[in-house]
Amino acid sequence: MYDNSTDLRIILVSMRAVDIIIKKRTLQELSRNEIRFFIQGFTDGSVTDYQASAWAMAVLLNGMTDRETTELTLAMAESGEIQDLSDTVDIALDKHSTGGVGDKTTLVVEPVVSACGFKVGKMSGRGLGFSGGTLDKMESIPGYRTNLTTDEFKKQLKEVGLVLTGQTGDLAPADGKLYALRDVTGTVDSLPLIASSIMSKKIAGGARRIVLDVKVGVGAFMKTLKEARALATIMVKIAKLAERKAVALLSDMNQPLGFAVGNSLEVKEAIETLNGGGPTDFRTHCLEVAGHLIILGGGAKTLATAKQRAEATLNDGTAFDRFRKLVSAQGGDVSYVDSPDKFPKAKFIEEVSSPRGGYLKAVDAQIVGETSVDLGGGRAKKGDPIDHAVGIVIHHKVGDRVAKGEPLFTLHANDKAKLEAAKERILKAHGWNAKKVKPLPHFYGTVK
Amino acid sequence: MYDNSTDLRIILVSMRAVDIIIKKRTLQELSRNEIRFFIQGFTDGSVTDYQASAWAMAVLLNGMTDRETTELTLAMAESGEIQDLSDTVDIALDKHSTGGVGDKTTLVVEPVVSACGFKVGKMSGRGLGFSGGTLDKMESIPGYRTNLTTDEFKKQLKEVGLVLTGQTGDLAPADGKLYALRDVTGTVDSLPLIASSIMSKKIAGGARRIVLDVKVGVGAFMKTLKEARALATIMVKIAKLAERKAVALLSDMNQPLGFAVGNSLEVKEAIETLNGGGPTDFRTHCLEVAGHLIILGGGAKTLATAKQRAEATLNDGTAFDRFRKLVSAQGGDVSYVDSPDKFPKAKFIEEVSSPRGGYLKAVDAQIVGETSVDLGGGRAKKGDPIDHAVGIVIHHKVGDRVAKGEPLFTLHANDKAKLEAAKERILKAHGWNAKKVKPLPHFYGTVK
Repeated sequence: MYDNSTDLRIILVSMRAVDIIIKKRTLQELSRNEIRFFIQGFTDGSVTDYQASAWAMAVLLNGMTDRETTELTLAMAESGEIQDLSDTVDIALDKHSTGGVGDKTTLVVEPVVSACGFKVGKMSGRGLGFSGGTLDKMESIPGYRTNLTTDEFKKQLKEVGLVLTGQTGDLAPADGKLYALRDVTGTVDSLPLIASSIMSKKIAGGARRIVLDVKVGVGAFMKTLKEARALATIMVKIAKLAERKAVALLSDMNQPLGFAVGNSLEVKEAIETLNGGGPTDFRTHCLEVAGHLIILGGGAKTLATAKQRAEATLNDGTAFDRFRKLVSAQGGDVSYVDSPDKFPKAKFIEEVSSPRGGYLKAVDAQIVGETSVDLGGGRAKKGDPIDHAVGIVIHHKVGDRVAKGEPLFTLHANDKAKLEAAKERILKAHGWNAKKVKPLPHFYGTVK
Repeated sequence: MYDNSTDLRIILVSMRAVDIIIKKRTLQELSRNEIRFFIQGFTDGSVTDYQASAWAMAVLLNGMTDRETTELTLAMAESGEIQDLSDTVDIALDKHSTGGVGDKTTLVVEPVVSACGFKVGKMSGRGLGFSGGTLDKMESIPGYRTNLTTDEFKKQLKEVGLVLTGQTGDLAPADGKLYALRDVTGTVDSLPLIASSIMSKKIAGGARRIVLDVKVGVGAFMKTLKEARALATIMVKIAKLAERKAVALLSDMNQPLGFAVGNSLEVKEAIETLNGGGPTDFRTHCLEVAGHLIILGGGAKTLATAKQRAEATLNDGTAFDRFRKLVSAQGGDVSYVDSPDKFPKAKFIEEVSSPRGGYLKAVDAQIVGETSVDLGGGRAKKGDPIDHAVGIVIHHKVGDRVAKGEPLFTLHANDKAKLEAAKERILKAHGWNAKKVKPLPHFYGTVK
């Protein structure tokens, strides 16, 4: 893709990090070579942390053109190994969610798309902050391995047709290093930096066609539709400029997705959904995401047809079967998938009734997510252990009419004091209205 | 001046550098405590270089209020020892030039003001880039010491009445550290950071009343009058808010000040001026700066009277005598002051004639300054040795009528190849016009 000739190296040698910072600071567009010089240097240490952080602040305040953001994405992707899946699958499909509360979509979508005849190998992440992580959820299943090697990844993708694991290698190390720096220098909230961080890992992972699930709302990183659309737009453009293809969905994250929030609770909800049941909003969401993946894979021409194909796999048991195969291939105990009652239960399970009647106008996803972390279901900081049994199951969505005394939510806790604190917080997460309230939309649009 | 109580320390302990960066990034005004926390932390290492550089970039791009800039100045001044001169002088006077080419003003102004009855203790700097440094010039005089201790400084100030040396102690260490970081992170060109850097050192040095000589033009750091006025204004405001008093002059630096550029050449020109001669523009400049110092010291009510007092000391030999006393007090060989012909001469001294006739429309100060550095008179980087004998003497100023073949400038070089290169460059620094050209102004205004 790139010209790695000696000439280029001579150009790079004559560059200085400080000049690149000043160029960005003075609103000039950086060239491909300048961005590659900076990111390569940052990866090998010749561009210092203090130069990278000054540059990141200049990027945050002055922005980047789409071309610059794409070059940054590629430079970060190429800072480490790039997984080549062309010998393993015809079309490397992938999905990415920007993170939310109750977002167990991958657990359903991957088996559905696999049941539709596509190979899907996915690398997921862990939860941090109030957003859950797919790996943590899957590790609720005893024995399930999330640390496949690159060879194992490829072998399973070829032979079983679906994989769900953590990063197989040192993908996009520049991104990891830059993210850690941004976290402590107040330079996280930059669209070009967020977009390039997400896309560099997807590209390094070998994805060619990607569905991006961009969450918007109080429980998402993007709080407004405007921000979410801007992020979606730039990521889709990066994909295009980098000769990949992406579709982005703008989906609601004001309230949790589905009912369950917490690791094994979410796995159980995913299994219900794979068995043809599950919460309506979550099922709707999964079919939409799967539908777009099927279109990208060439399996349907219209979204309606694609969703029909997807829905059939939930109704005829083929998606559930794919999930069983996935769990089994990665060493998980399939008996848990077959009998979800086997999942260890929390010590305290308490159903809480609604203190008043009315229409629900809010179930604050961020508060629910934070409470799940407080109960032990997430991490306050990287490396913290996780309690897979705890969490929250809400019973109603925004727009529902709830009678006083009707069950409002159920808490799963392993600590009495935490249970009490959670009860208070989750009650506060709910908002009532005397008059009818419109349900929240599932989606706000699509960016192609 | 500040409340250093335990309560304040508790406030500071609960702060986080990243929040302060984000606050500045999002255009909020930082409080005194936040700025002190950040600068104290940066000085002791608890706020990292990469946090400081991200913060500096946010300051550069988002600016600072006058109050913030003043707090930054004081926090940097207080990051080390603050010299207290109240037991040594009634009013601690000081002057500061933002740096230029041929700017040997201190060498004349300090003896003049001393001859007018004021005690003046001044800490100067070295040259870097194309701007010369007062210490380098004074070190042309054999034996002259520029490394006085704090005690020596105070003793000489009390007993002799004038001092001209380098920094006596670790003044404003936060400024030194921040400047080094700004230099490699593209964050030099920020008015609040430049202003606080200059003023923190002046305040730490004990100055109470300060004349700021802000240079503007091609040979100055500030290229436009607008920038120079903005810098002057903020520095004067800082002085006021910090309970000091400052006056800023906006003075021309499109062409060199005086005729001589180069260390011993400039000392000789200063000695001529102290003896009642010297170039008109330089003499005018010195009298203006001295006049404002005399007013700040309470020695005159109007600038005209102050300048008359100053001029008298040049005409009656008292200023020259003060200079002799200064040199002698700091170990310098006064015979060089008395017989400037004793200064070692460069190997090659070549007078270059004007290649054409006409009116001079430019003598580019930056080119002249850079050429002096190339000849060995300045430093390409910190710590480089200096050749005190080399330099350039121009013979004409902008507006002069020059005939073809008339002497245009004289080069003093110790290397034949460098001489030839310098000849070509200095010729290019001169611009001619067939029609009459107005002389450049000495001053563009005063900011009080």
